[in-house]
Amino acid sequence: MAYFRAHIEMLDGYVPGEQPSERDVVKLNTNENPYPPSPRVLEAVHSITGEQLRRYPHPMGQAFRQAAADVLGVRPEMVICGNGMDDLLNMVVRAFSGPEARLVYPSPTYTLYAVLAAIEASLVTEVAFGPEYELPFDDLVAADGRVTFLCNPNSPSGTFVPVERVAELARKVRGVLVVDEAYVDFADENCMRLASELPNVLVLRTLSKGYSLAGMRFGYGVGSPELIEGLVKVKDSYNVDAISIAAATAAMRDQEYARGNWERVRSERERLTGELTGLGFSVLPSQSNFLLASIADPTAESLYESLKARKILVRYFKQPRLDGSLRITVGTPKENDALLAALRELV
Amino acid sequence: MAYFRAHIEMLDGYVPGEQPSERDVVKLNTNENPYPPSPRVLEAVHSITGEQLRRYPHPMGQAFRQAAADVLGVRPEMVICGNGMDDLLNMVVRAFSGPEARLVYPSPTYTLYAVLAAIEASLVTEVAFGPEYELPFDDLVAADGRVTFLCNPNSPSGTFVPVERVAELARKVRGVLVVDEAYVDFADENCMRLASELPNVLVLRTLSKGYSLAGMRFGYGVGSPELIEGLVKVKDSYNVDAISIAAATAAMRDQEYARGNWERVRSERERLTGELTGLGFSVLPSQSNFLLASIADPTAESLYESLKARKILVRYFKQPRLDGSLRITVGTPKENDALLAALRELV
Repeated sequence: MAYFRAHIEMLDGYVPGEQPSERDVVKLNTNENPYPPSPRVLEAVHSITGEQLRRYPHPMGQAFRQAAADVLGVRPEMVICGNGMDDLLNMVVRAFSGPEARLVYPSPTYTLYAVLAAIEASLVTEVAFGPEYELPFDDLVAADGRVTFLCNPNSPSGTFVPVERVAELARKVRGVLVVDEAYVDFADENCMRLASELPNVLVLRTLSKGYSLAGMRFGYGVGSPELIEGLVKVKDSYNVDAISIAAATAAMRDQEYARGNWERVRSERERLTGELTGLGFSVLPSQSNFLLASIADPTAESLYESLKARKILVRYFKQPRLDGSLRITVGTPKENDALLAALRELV
Repeated sequence: MAYFRAHIEMLDGYVPGEQPSERDVVKLNTNENPYPPSPRVLEAVHSITGEQLRRYPHPMGQAFRQAAADVLGVRPEMVICGNGMDDLLNMVVRAFSGPEARLVYPSPTYTLYAVLAAIEASLVTEVAFGPEYELPFDDLVAADGRVTFLCNPNSPSGTFVPVERVAELARKVRGVLVVDEAYVDFADENCMRLASELPNVLVLRTLSKGYSLAGMRFGYGVGSPELIEGLVKVKDSYNVDAISIAAATAAMRDQEYARGNWERVRSERERLTGELTGLGFSVLPSQSNFLLASIADPTAESLYESLKARKILVRYFKQPRLDGSLRITVGTPKENDALLAALRELV
């Protein structure tokens, strides 16, 4: 068909993880939080009125901006809301990069960066992480991107680059450093302070994982007011809706509830790491809510298939460096036990 | 700041209409439906569970696709969901146009087309509508856009181009014809059948106006499966959330409720047209839920200000051809009476 731009015509879109409709699947493949969202979120959703739905929402999601500012200790003008973090990544590529500008990131990482670059016809330099997922610092700087992405903790490795190292990177690169903190709620540290300290750092977060709201699509970005103001120009006027603003605000204001879940996930993460290691897997040290676990025999691909046959879904990436591993979301103790029981029979 | 692309740096973003937080304003400026959404929508929202929020939504909003297919008599593969129609317009520009390709539309019209073109660094040909907002057919064809936009009914004029004329235009242009039917629920006819009959027609709709859901952000597009498949490549993986899919599906399946509101708006539209004409305004024949009403003395701008001082908001566009007019959303009978009472004192 001649209607599409040539490079769009040739594009393979982003392939999201499987979302089975059956409810009896042990779903450890797309890094959802295993616990439900805060009761206050449901209260907010259940008290939405027809009048709130009839009228346009606040174009900037002001109630959430204020809540995030209060929790994070930044000014509201430093916060921008997104319809999921993907919406924000999309804005970033369109605002800073564009055709034939260069995007840089260490790999393997979140595969959407490459897809967004392809949609925008941007150039891409992927720099391989070190053997233990060390940051390839000099090569990232040398690649000189208009935008450098750093997923931290990284997916699918779960590994974390220390904040001081990220700060050094931000000081060295000429363009914008986007720190994708989708999984940071499960980590010991985070880079939020860099958004206040350095003019070229944009920290992106999502409520999908830490706040159990993958179904709701709400992300936010934090950076200097100048960065945020520029991003606002390319965002859809009303990109977040009245319900999700109310729900996200309630989630953000209930830090205590969220922290409880983060602790439970971290504790299960340590248990799962130990058990998988005992079964013969090599497991990277994870600061996220998932583990990248490698095994030689049986192959990761056959294990993925065998688990799927038992209605246990994990993520398998058929690509260099990752095809010997499974990415396993940390589930509830019961879900993790089901996984471990199956693996004990299979390995 | 050197971080942004040069043309983004220079860009003025889209300016949405005022959204006052006070509830005692008679708000006739952004074309919201004056009646609340269907009770079934609220039932759907109020019965959302934590589990629905915890998990990712269906990437294609399948429940809504099926509902729309049932109501419109098309196949689900011909339907794509969007986070508001703006999300779909955004996808259109990125998929079909891009930098230095040409977008064409008759003007004056929805000002977002120009903003999206500017963000994407596309070329634009604006072709003036005729004196009574007749379609400038030959000039639109001659402009040879990769995408031609037609807002029908048009905003801010409210006028309608007959379906047969739109079909002719679609057959003549080489690129894609996007028919923006944001306001079509209030019209006598619509172009939906062209989405099935012609390979280059994409019909876009929103639930903001006809279904009283501006606060929710839900739009959809209908076109050939090939067009839809290409658009899916550039859309965010999970662009519509679990709550809005459920709410939009409920709204779509309650056609009877929606139709009742459309009838009430149309009836008030006719009354308001008559009354405004009696007051000395020239009012274009409207097929939408608003009126474009012109007056020479007092000036439209001063009338806008005087109404605002009385807490009645209408839309004033300070630009050539529109600066002698007010765009007035059709409200409830009581809201329209308040407007008319104020105007009787002011003109």
